[in-house]
Amino acid sequence: MTARLIARTPSAVATQMVIGTILETGVRTSPNQEIVYADKCRMTYLELQQRVGRLASALAAAGVKAGDTVAVMDWDTHRYLECFYAIPMMGAVLHTVNVRLSPEQVLYTINHAKDDVILVNREFLPLIDAVKDRIETVKTFILLDDEGGDVPAGFAGEYEALLAQADSNYAFPELDENTCATTFYTTGTTGLPKGVYFSHRQLVLHTFALRAVTSGDGQGRFNQSDVYMPITPMFHVHAWGVPYLATLLGVKQVYPGRYVPEILLKLLVTEKVTFSHCVPTIIQMLLGSEVVRQLDLSKWKVIIGGSALPKSLAKGAMEMGIDIFTGYGMSETGPVLTLANLMPHMEEWDMDAQADVRCRAGRPIPMVDLRIVDGNMNSLPHDGKTQGEIVVRAPWLTQGYLDDPANSEELWQGGWLHTGDIGVIDADGYLKITDRIKDVIKTGGEWISSLDLEGLILQHPGVAECAVIGMPDAKWGERPLALVVKKPDADVTSEAIQNLVADFAEKGVISRYGIPENIKFVDSLPRTSVGKLDKKLMRTEHLG
Amino acid sequence: MTARLIARTPSAVATQMVIGTILETGVRTSPNQEIVYADKCRMTYLELQQRVGRLASALAAAGVKAGDTVAVMDWDTHRYLECFYAIPMMGAVLHTVNVRLSPEQVLYTINHAKDDVILVNREFLPLIDAVKDRIETVKTFILLDDEGGDVPAGFAGEYEALLAQADSNYAFPELDENTCATTFYTTGTTGLPKGVYFSHRQLVLHTFALRAVTSGDGQGRFNQSDVYMPITPMFHVHAWGVPYLATLLGVKQVYPGRYVPEILLKLLVTEKVTFSHCVPTIIQMLLGSEVVRQLDLSKWKVIIGGSALPKSLAKGAMEMGIDIFTGYGMSETGPVLTLANLMPHMEEWDMDAQADVRCRAGRPIPMVDLRIVDGNMNSLPHDGKTQGEIVVRAPWLTQGYLDDPANSEELWQGGWLHTGDIGVIDADGYLKITDRIKDVIKTGGEWISSLDLEGLILQHPGVAECAVIGMPDAKWGERPLALVVKKPDADVTSEAIQNLVADFAEKGVISRYGIPENIKFVDSLPRTSVGKLDKKLMRTEHLG
Repeated sequence: MTARLIARTPSAVATQMVIGTILETGVRTSPNQEIVYADKCRMTYLELQQRVGRLASALAAAGVKAGDTVAVMDWDTHRYLECFYAIPMMGAVLHTVNVRLSPEQVLYTINHAKDDVILVNREFLPLIDAVKDRIETVKTFILLDDEGGDVPAGFAGEYEALLAQADSNYAFPELDENTCATTFYTTGTTGLPKGVYFSHRQLVLHTFALRAVTSGDGQGRFNQSDVYMPITPMFHVHAWGVPYLATLLGVKQVYPGRYVPEILLKLLVTEKVTFSHCVPTIIQMLLGSEVVRQLDLSKWKVIIGGSALPKSLAKGAMEMGIDIFTGYGMSETGPVLTLANLMPHMEEWDMDAQADVRCRAGRPIPMVDLRIVDGNMNSLPHDGKTQGEIVVRAPWLTQGYLDDPANSEELWQGGWLHTGDIGVIDADGYLKITDRIKDVIKTGGEWISSLDLEGLILQHPGVAECAVIGMPDAKWGERPLALVVKKPDADVTSEAIQNLVADFAEKGVISRYGIPENIKFVDSLPRTSVGKLDKKLMRTEHLG
Repeated sequence: MTARLIARTPSAVATQMVIGTILETGVRTSPNQEIVYADKCRMTYLELQQRVGRLASALAAAGVKAGDTVAVMDWDTHRYLECFYAIPMMGAVLHTVNVRLSPEQVLYTINHAKDDVILVNREFLPLIDAVKDRIETVKTFILLDDEGGDVPAGFAGEYEALLAQADSNYAFPELDENTCATTFYTTGTTGLPKGVYFSHRQLVLHTFALRAVTSGDGQGRFNQSDVYMPITPMFHVHAWGVPYLATLLGVKQVYPGRYVPEILLKLLVTEKVTFSHCVPTIIQMLLGSEVVRQLDLSKWKVIIGGSALPKSLAKGAMEMGIDIFTGYGMSETGPVLTLANLMPHMEEWDMDAQADVRCRAGRPIPMVDLRIVDGNMNSLPHDGKTQGEIVVRAPWLTQGYLDDPANSEELWQGGWLHTGDIGVIDADGYLKITDRIKDVIKTGGEWISSLDLEGLILQHPGVAECAVIGMPDAKWGERPLALVVKKPDADVTSEAIQNLVADFAEKGVISRYGIPENIKFVDSLPRTSVGKLDKKLMRTEHLG
């Protein structure tokens, strides 16, 4: 006998998990709560709901049908939040365009996604003009505008004007929960952008899992009395899905437009923001500012993602009273996989011990099955030392790359999504990312994390920058090569660096195989367009 | 063009929502948190997880396979919690037997559910013995025992002894989320018990929706630092699903065994319980006890369900510092549909105004679409006055009655689950139950709530009890008949009661059609076996 599926009475309706339920819950919970767009616009949740209806009516009038793809090119605004709901709720697909890409890349994503309509902020009109002749499928352009200027020729109209004429009572269709809701593109260091996509079910489950793990009475919680402002853009993996979470909660939401430091700071204070997420560089910038040091940021909780949070930066933020901790995920994963909230007993720990935990990638959130595995997909122990590739299953992972079967199969080989990251998991279940799988150095049967080794070398007072790459080696498979940029006038020798690493090896911090016999002093390190170390280029330049 | 479903790469895995994810989350969150069974047993979440593995191994050894039905007859114990997980996680169906039914009814449900195995507490052996010859499908009996006595002949063994020999590493199968997980029976005032059933997906979504609505920083919230003790039995609609919610949260859980007032009170104090749910009579009992009045119950949050919470009782509890509020649902609905938490601005209100809100059925929880409709399924306004039948859609409603197509279709007619209750919804979205649809009085085109009218008549100082039923009337369709039990030696006339109701009609509290011209003074009112007014019998007795 096998497991029995439930029997469904013919008239019974199996309720689908669709994005509309998130908006509905927020409006029920907090009908009069505020949504703010910088100093330009304030509305209530009830008004948001009405405007979502109006937007759908306006888009339908402009020809949008279920199954169409509607692209948005905007900064973080109330309009974007409205698009997060109206477009998927119509059965259309929201394409959140990464406006930081080059015009050629933006063109590629528009054509590859087969966009039917583009809503574009006036700021990006030059970008669109530059490639307009080569845009293939877009039939309708709509202007997003804060300035009230002219609508360009060929545009169907301006957003607010279209909404003003539209009916707030749009009859949203009943949708299958596996309907595609959103799509966007991820850019690696090589190759063309790849499209990921998410269904209504996936976004709803991501939101409810976040709701379960972020709320309550422990450290870093996000509750009804909080005030939310994103500092990771809405075009970037749904701003980590937090606008959906914030709406479900019914909290006050503040959208800052383009990220201008002075405006972010002003909103932080005047709107009493208590919950945000951002990349480490934003915190770096804040800590370096004299103005910020005079503000009270002791009610601000911030999730850090995008790249590793250095411990020194975490401690600097904690000294200012900021409740800072890390989250981990990627475009392919919706994004959230883990969060580094403290366990209750850790809240008593001193700052240094806490910072160690807060800088890890964190523990898997509900419904996430995250493992570290060896090359044969065997699970590795949670001992805080054994490194393995991070593979995951969860209800909200992209089920492939858009129209790209080969990369899709590689992503999902063996029935697990391969993150391409290397990590360790400790006995408490906290994941720590040690490297990208492409950057790990496999030497003498050991895996040496290039990031770990870089971190150790950077502790030398004369070292300004450092990158470690693996070079082919006949005997050991690979050996580390350290590329080092000295601080001006600093006195650093290869031997000093080797002694430093050897000391750490002595203490068990890193394997003896990690002591680099090859060290090159260089003037600068090559970086990619988004500022990451370009190790592919380094390997090419220094091969042999 | 129609809405587009997401494309799935062949190797990609669509993670299913299965009950194991709830246990996994709890163990990750709070591995060392406690689970307590009265004064008999304490364990950690990690131990719970290991024991769930052992239980599955033991049941498999006893012949349980995926698709089988495993019945449990027990009070609220750690064993029941283990069954909540192990049995569904094996792909089998957990039948939670209502041990308060008569032996004949218990027999009926065991045979109708086609139970394969029964786990039975020693206390219920006489009940089983009385019907054992007529049990049709059960092949295996397992003893649940707190006393350590002999295992009856023909039993496969005793629970703890079987677990002690079993392997904690059971290989749970991967399940489709629509696999049936639980079944149990609902008994109306007439007819045979009807079986309802719930899938893994339904229970997981119910749990996550509860997690979203109950946690955070408002009134009556259930957070990680709370301590949970059920006072609605685990055989009754999964104890409202709260054991699953408590496990997801990772809170300390206290199971009290059979509900003995002194034990409940002792556990409440010694285990520092802060969150429970019960029927109004439990609160009534507590408020009447001298012992209780000396306890500090000011940290105790209690959801009331099962029948209406009288305002006077709510105020009595609030005066003792208890954070009391109502929930609404039924066996068919998994159960929770609404909760009467205060909105933030109501937390400033005085006790009387708060009690009004706390006694309503509440607002729909996330994912619940709840409507009041007229006889043609038209939605009625949320004005706090217009009454309609309450119909619902939600992801966790039973999709029918077990092997009962006729009643299943009636339950789901028109694609909405019919609760059989009549209610009003106010502008804030709070539902108030005004009557059962069978008890409402349809007169002169108006719906008069028999419960409302009873409440008004009960305000006469000389009235002890009152029941109002609708009697056929040639001119008006129906007219109310009030059956009144006087207090001893009280002086009450029909005219006095009519004047009282007329005064309320004058103030707009009730329609003038509600003034009863027919009032009968009786010695007592007939009640059903569970103590509810037996209006069906009253209608028969007083017809014509």
